[in-house]
Amino acid sequence: MQALPGFRDFLPENCAARNYIFAKWREVARSYGFIEWDGPILEPTELYKKKSGVEIVDQLFNFADKGERDVAMRPELTPTLARVIAAHEREFKKPLKWFSIGRFFRHEKQQRGRLREHFQLNCDIVGENALAADIELLALCIDLLRAFGFTEKVAVVRISDREFWTDFLREKNVPSDRWDELLQIIDKSGRESPENTRAKLGELADPVLAILSEGGKSEKLERLVKGLRGRGLADFIDIDVRIVRGLAYYTGIVFEVFDRGGKLRAIAGGGRYDNLIQQLSDGAVSMPALGFAMGDVVLGELINETAKAREKMQQVIAAEQKIDIYIVIAKEERRADALAQIQELRDRGYRVDYALTPEKVAKQFQTAEQLGARLAILFGDEWPQLKMKDMASGEQQLISSKDLVSRIGSELPR
Amino acid sequence: MQALPGFRDFLPENCAARNYIFAKWREVARSYGFIEWDGPILEPTELYKKKSGVEIVDQLFNFADKGERDVAMRPELTPTLARVIAAHEREFKKPLKWFSIGRFFRHEKQQRGRLREHFQLNCDIVGENALAADIELLALCIDLLRAFGFTEKVAVVRISDREFWTDFLREKNVPSDRWDELLQIIDKSGRESPENTRAKLGELADPVLAILSEGGKSEKLERLVKGLRGRGLADFIDIDVRIVRGLAYYTGIVFEVFDRGGKLRAIAGGGRYDNLIQQLSDGAVSMPALGFAMGDVVLGELINETAKAREKMQQVIAAEQKIDIYIVIAKEERRADALAQIQELRDRGYRVDYALTPEKVAKQFQTAEQLGARLAILFGDEWPQLKMKDMASGEQQLISSKDLVSRIGSELPR
Repeated sequence: MQALPGFRDFLPENCAARNYIFAKWREVARSYGFIEWDGPILEPTELYKKKSGVEIVDQLFNFADKGERDVAMRPELTPTLARVIAAHEREFKKPLKWFSIGRFFRHEKQQRGRLREHFQLNCDIVGENALAADIELLALCIDLLRAFGFTEKVAVVRISDREFWTDFLREKNVPSDRWDELLQIIDKSGRESPENTRAKLGELADPVLAILSEGGKSEKLERLVKGLRGRGLADFIDIDVRIVRGLAYYTGIVFEVFDRGGKLRAIAGGGRYDNLIQQLSDGAVSMPALGFAMGDVVLGELINETAKAREKMQQVIAAEQKIDIYIVIAKEERRADALAQIQELRDRGYRVDYALTPEKVAKQFQTAEQLGARLAILFGDEWPQLKMKDMASGEQQLISSKDLVSRIGSELPR
Repeated sequence: MQALPGFRDFLPENCAARNYIFAKWREVARSYGFIEWDGPILEPTELYKKKSGVEIVDQLFNFADKGERDVAMRPELTPTLARVIAAHEREFKKPLKWFSIGRFFRHEKQQRGRLREHFQLNCDIVGENALAADIELLALCIDLLRAFGFTEKVAVVRISDREFWTDFLREKNVPSDRWDELLQIIDKSGRESPENTRAKLGELADPVLAILSEGGKSEKLERLVKGLRGRGLADFIDIDVRIVRGLAYYTGIVFEVFDRGGKLRAIAGGGRYDNLIQQLSDGAVSMPALGFAMGDVVLGELINETAKAREKMQQVIAAEQKIDIYIVIAKEERRADALAQIQELRDRGYRVDYALTPEKVAKQFQTAEQLGARLAILFGDEWPQLKMKDMASGEQQLISSKDLVSRIGSELPR
């Protein structure tokens, strides 16, 4: 029996890599003053039908539960955030800067970088209209990339502004019920032949294609880049007005993160969604908001393909998986004494292991080495003295069993 | 719109409490040399139908996915562990000591201490027959309780042995296809009237009720208690042969953790399941195993009801939620300078916050205090000097903006 297609088992090494990603996400988000929250994995399906894009609704893991409720495993966090904010916004000072790390589910066709269960970091700022919030959010996104060891030569943040296009469509007197369709055509233009895009755009083809080939400019986007330049982060940025984002609820600045090599799918994406909270709360609460999500799958691929990032991860994982002390029991008469000391050392927070059943001393030292123990302590003929071995240097010394805990306190300060 | 019944939103304070529990779980499990792994949230329903108890299968969140697979949101981790071990056991040295922290789902009637989505720590030892492994596992379980600040006056671990009963039933020539039913009657005897239990037990009533009133004894259980006494943990233990555990797959020592007050449901439970891996792998892999799960819901209730444990948690949470530095921008001309320094400090791992838009200085200091900042740094008329305020003592001093990062390095060493 295997895991379902698109679902992963996390063996210890994979779990350590996942925890490394989570720890970096958490550390950088907190350095920006973001605080952690979370929602349930299961939500009413209605929450997503209301405002997520068609693609997301088509890929829902949804079903009727035993109480005949139509429920769905969450495909994204933003609708939950809007629901929670609408219910609790009075309890918090604005703007809120919140992050969350968790599992998400989409019933996608299996392909590279896409799984049916994956993890996402979500970072959102709620209650701030100013462009300063967009800059803060983008700076956080870029600093996350930097924390994994990616330079501007490895990753790029493509930035656009939906308002740029909605202003354009308004100016061209295009009725607003056609906007979504046209934005999708623009979004897909990079992956389509120019002829196809031209045919789909109809009478708007000339002006739209002209903008796309020029690159498009706006005063807002320039202010944004300037803000990031002041923080030394602008080299990660490309203005690219083709970016529109599939999700229907975005209203302003939108962005996507890619590898510069262009081999992988998007690493992260997000933007401003100023109307969503109002729409989901049926008008009860109105609040500007913006955010992004970064997934673990493509990120993990890029870490593995980038030597510096991969080595950085492997170093942290190796250190994390090591134990501190291995207790070698050379005489079974000493097992009870050894266990009492093991208890004491674990109580002090050390990672301590030992052989549950009698084993040859050489084999116990071998296990000590495999587990990465920094010290091995031998309980044997020397009792009430113990042999303490530094596993890296091989140095051995005799210590009194009474002094063990204090000696370890100085050898391995916590 | 609210969360579904039995599902929780984790607002920042609840999320911090949850993270506190996770961190303690992780820390203590690692001190025992356990390493972390995880499985998917969704599994083939068959995995649970094969071996979980009837109660669990009745409460599954299961459904047909878009590929017509019968899938279920995991109600417990042990079947996934058995599946993963059967597939990968050759890659690891035995015994394995593995732990995992994650979400689990049961469509239960809502009641105190029971939710439909909850978190569990699972700790398992695989590949060791010796009773030393049962003692090690129980010691870990007790040390988890101690880590939260529970004494033996607050929590109790009730221990039993299924073999005690299967030996008894074999001796009485009860056919093995009746064992499960009889074990369930024994399991429920504490919550039933003696007359009901007597009627259900039939001809076995007299000997079983005699054992239950005497308490039951076995050499194995005595060795177990002795092992825990050697570690100073025996005061947490009660031998109670009525404990059988609902899950069908247990084979040896079983245990459940309760509050001594007897007000709450079980905090944790587990035991030996020596045949499960073989059964789930259709005989391909045979390996003894044992483990337990500790849930977050009842544990959280007991923390909140136990003054010492509650204060311990609140202290950690309060410290975790604080930021390090709040940057006060007194003159808008200094905003760009401030942002460059903010970037530098965050790069060094400090938690730094500031007002995204112009605000009165008094209000900014107020926010600094609300966020628990240890230092506030004011960018204003004194430029290129800065005012540094220790938020606890109120002491202020002028420092050069060029020295900011190094000064903060000595004020807030990392």
